Amino acid sequence: MKQGQTHSSFDFIIFGATGDLTKRKLLPALFYRYLDQEIPSKTRIIGAARSQLSNEEFRAQARDGLNQFVQEPDRNPEKIEAFLQQIFYISLNGAEAESNWPALLNLLSSDPQNDIRIFYLATSPKLYGAICDNLSNEGLITENSRVVLEKPIGTSLATAQDINNSVGKHFPENHIFRIDHYLGKETVQNIIALRFANPVFERLWNSDVIDYVQITAAETVGIGNRGGYYDGAGALRDMVQNHLLQVLCMVAMDPPISLEADDLRNEKLKILRSLSPMSEEDIRLNTVRGQYDAGMEGNKPVSSYLEDLKKENSNTETYVAICAHVNTSRWSSVPFYLRTGKRMAEKTSEVVIQFKRSAWSLFPTMPEPNRLHIRIQPDEGVSLSLQVKDPSKSHDSLRSTFIDIDFSPAFHIRYPDAYEGLLMDVVEGDPLLFIRNDEVEAAWRWVEPILKGWSKGLVPLSHYKSGSWGPNEANKLLAKNGHLWHEVMP
Amino acid sequence: MKQGQTHSSFDFIIFGATGDLTKRKLLPALFYRYLDQEIPSKTRIIGAARSQLSNEEFRAQARDGLNQFVQEPDRNPEKIEAFLQQIFYISLNGAEAESNWPALLNLLSSDPQNDIRIFYLATSPKLYGAICDNLSNEGLITENSRVVLEKPIGTSLATAQDINNSVGKHFPENHIFRIDHYLGKETVQNIIALRFANPVFERLWNSDVIDYVQITAAETVGIGNRGGYYDGAGALRDMVQNHLLQVLCMVAMDPPISLEADDLRNEKLKILRSLSPMSEEDIRLNTVRGQYDAGMEGNKPVSSYLEDLKKENSNTETYVAICAHVNTSRWSSVPFYLRTGKRMAEKTSEVVIQFKRSAWSLFPTMPEPNRLHIRIQPDEGVSLSLQVKDPSKSHDSLRSTFIDIDFSPAFHIRYPDAYEGLLMDVVEGDPLLFIRNDEVEAAWRWVEPILKGWSKGLVPLSHYKSGSWGPNEANKLLAKNGHLWHEVMP
Repeated sequence: MKQGQTHSSFDFIIFGATGDLTKRKLLPALFYRYLDQEIPSKTRIIGAARSQLSNEEFRAQARDGLNQFVQEPDRNPEKIEAFLQQIFYISLNGAEAESNWPALLNLLSSDPQNDIRIFYLATSPKLYGAICDNLSNEGLITENSRVVLEKPIGTSLATAQDINNSVGKHFPENHIFRIDHYLGKETVQNIIALRFANPVFERLWNSDVIDYVQITAAETVGIGNRGGYYDGAGALRDMVQNHLLQVLCMVAMDPPISLEADDLRNEKLKILRSLSPMSEEDIRLNTVRGQYDAGMEGNKPVSSYLEDLKKENSNTETYVAICAHVNTSRWSSVPFYLRTGKRMAEKTSEVVIQFKRSAWSLFPTMPEPNRLHIRIQPDEGVSLSLQVKDPSKSHDSLRSTFIDIDFSPAFHIRYPDAYEGLLMDVVEGDPLLFIRNDEVEAAWRWVEPILKGWSKGLVPLSHYKSGSWGPNEANKLLAKNGHLWHEVMP
Repeated sequence: MKQGQTHSSFDFIIFGATGDLTKRKLLPALFYRYLDQEIPSKTRIIGAARSQLSNEEFRAQARDGLNQFVQEPDRNPEKIEAFLQQIFYISLNGAEAESNWPALLNLLSSDPQNDIRIFYLATSPKLYGAICDNLSNEGLITENSRVVLEKPIGTSLATAQDINNSVGKHFPENHIFRIDHYLGKETVQNIIALRFANPVFERLWNSDVIDYVQITAAETVGIGNRGGYYDGAGALRDMVQNHLLQVLCMVAMDPPISLEADDLRNEKLKILRSLSPMSEEDIRLNTVRGQYDAGMEGNKPVSSYLEDLKKENSNTETYVAICAHVNTSRWSSVPFYLRTGKRMAEKTSEVVIQFKRSAWSLFPTMPEPNRLHIRIQPDEGVSLSLQVKDPSKSHDSLRSTFIDIDFSPAFHIRYPDAYEGLLMDVVEGDPLLFIRNDEVEAAWRWVEPILKGWSKGLVPLSHYKSGSWGPNEANKLLAKNGHLWHEVMP
């Protein structure tokens, strides 16, 4: 995707259009692309959902959403109104064969007839199969049609395979766009550039030099009103199976032979398949699960997970830490520590590459090991920690510092939301940053034994205070290897 | 040297005390150390020179110098007056046996009797031998005496050996402090920390990874009123034989076994002895000499070297560029480009480590090679150039940027002048950052054939415009190898 690029006009049909995702992410992203003149005037955005709404009523909802989720300086009322004229609504239950399909059919075949047709499934994944069946039965799937699937792609290997098969019956794999918004983040994409356009890093990118890797996705918020979904999923399904493993792939993969989508995805798949399977003993020793207690979110006192959920008890984890191993020649013996949690001390997604400590020191103290810190969000950027001479101190005194680039001010631009780029990639038909069916399944193949082990009670649920960095067991997990999480590193 | 450290009181005797160095560098440096309470109250600074001056007259000169060369916020008049009370003057021709030695003898043996005695020779190097003979004959050299020698230590191997021998008759080598203020610069010392306290750099520090090295010392000023000295010396003797080769040693040396002075100096000596000797053919192909013509110094039109010198002609170089090779296993095949010049476009001393270009690219364009830029002065700091994804452009578009640390704001301190640290090292008796006799001689051994070749006319004198980056021949010197000077790099 290139900002400011001209695309063909397209029809963008959102199933589940009255949901949160449409309001918070999809319409604001499309509006920003509209401001950059990437949404041609014949393009139509068609909301579909069960509610009985007129075009005007849906546009009113959309207007509210834009005024809430577009940044203030970009909220030009005239432009918003003009953009809304490209939005339409059809009351339709996509999962039902007998629903109002003729209305959609009419609208799509009316003038202007757009060549590219995008079906965005912002519904429960359980409905993906039925919606695709109906799209097919109604003859709506053209040669230039694409389907976009939101996570979670299943809740297990079997359910993921079901979804892949039922969608794959109607769409060829390269027309199926499984979205993982982490891959849309500039800094995640930047891992490719950092690694493969900088020989100095590529030379350092292996187990000779790297001690361990940490991948963190920490949120400060709790489950909010998503408790119904979340309690059935948990952090491992919600974050690790998709986002964290995708970031791990970007860090760990070998150089792809090109930036064609399948070349990149082949390399990611190799990593997913190289993850050392977790035996029951591994699960016991190398995974931690936690659930938040009451505590603080910023300055605000907040309740426990159970109170948020309004349930007496729940065995669902809101925090996971895992010590994973990638069984390749480049990475053997390097631990990859993955963690994610809600109600953590800070909102941060980051990768920390901890280089090995030298076994020898010229200086009276052992210098701190070097560290490359890739900040995915917020404050996108990269820094490398260094030891330098402490100025005007004795000749042999060191001080830790770092060389840093903060991408956002460095490039003097607004950082586009991940969805903006990804949606335009769908329009362009470029699946580079989307997850292939075999990747989803390989990720489940590694995750599922952990879920099974946990359901057997191999790993007791730890508790942590809201606003902390998770349960103490996560510190012990690293301490066994003499390692530390980033926030407690010196 | 450690700022704010307590030293024993000492007598600091400056021969040639009425010269520029005393006013510009030595007294301001000692005053700053006084402000940091490192000059104990019994310490005496004793100026010695031929002029007939009273203590008060010399203090008046000193006061003028401090008001000119100490930064405004530090010019506390009361502190200056108190400091001046520790300054004395003796009219004495140090090179003459029959001069006013009894006065110095009296002063030094009077109360308070300071244990440490420092003889700072800020005179013509031709007088070093005679002054030391007289110091010895007068019985002034105690066990705790040190002598400090300013550059140039000779103008050839033979004259350097003469100086070393004549001073060495009276002082043991570890009491002889040959000052090279480049080694006093924090960023030059920082090369040791960067290299040996950061395994990521040490792994990259060899000919597998490094393409070439550039060491630049560029001044914007011309010869000023130093023409008399300068025309007999030239840039090769004035800058390359000492400062540039010392910086080269810091960049190229193997790790010393400790930070003891002789361990470090042994490693530097190895590098000086490993410099590939320059044959006449090498001199013709790999050295460039230039002299500045009229042009600009900043916005100010300035005259040519000959006009500044007020002579009809001169064959003296004000600019040198050399392609040197260090014949060790670490560096074989890596060119070290040295250059220095007066009336250059910018005042800058810097080291540029240019890493090799990858032979393969994942991206449509070949990424620019990485570059580590060590800024010695001004703007002391380090930056590493990187290729990153160009945000919001297509997936495969790169942009050059850099991660940077600017030492001075990073540490929120005034950067002490190189002399401050070095003078306190002399007080402490730590010769780590001073040049040993064998280093001086090894440097001359490598430089002398170039001087001889030039005097044979092997390399014609090029001319360059004041305010430029030197003669075009210097660009050709690098272009032959497909290389570029830093200021023209992309």
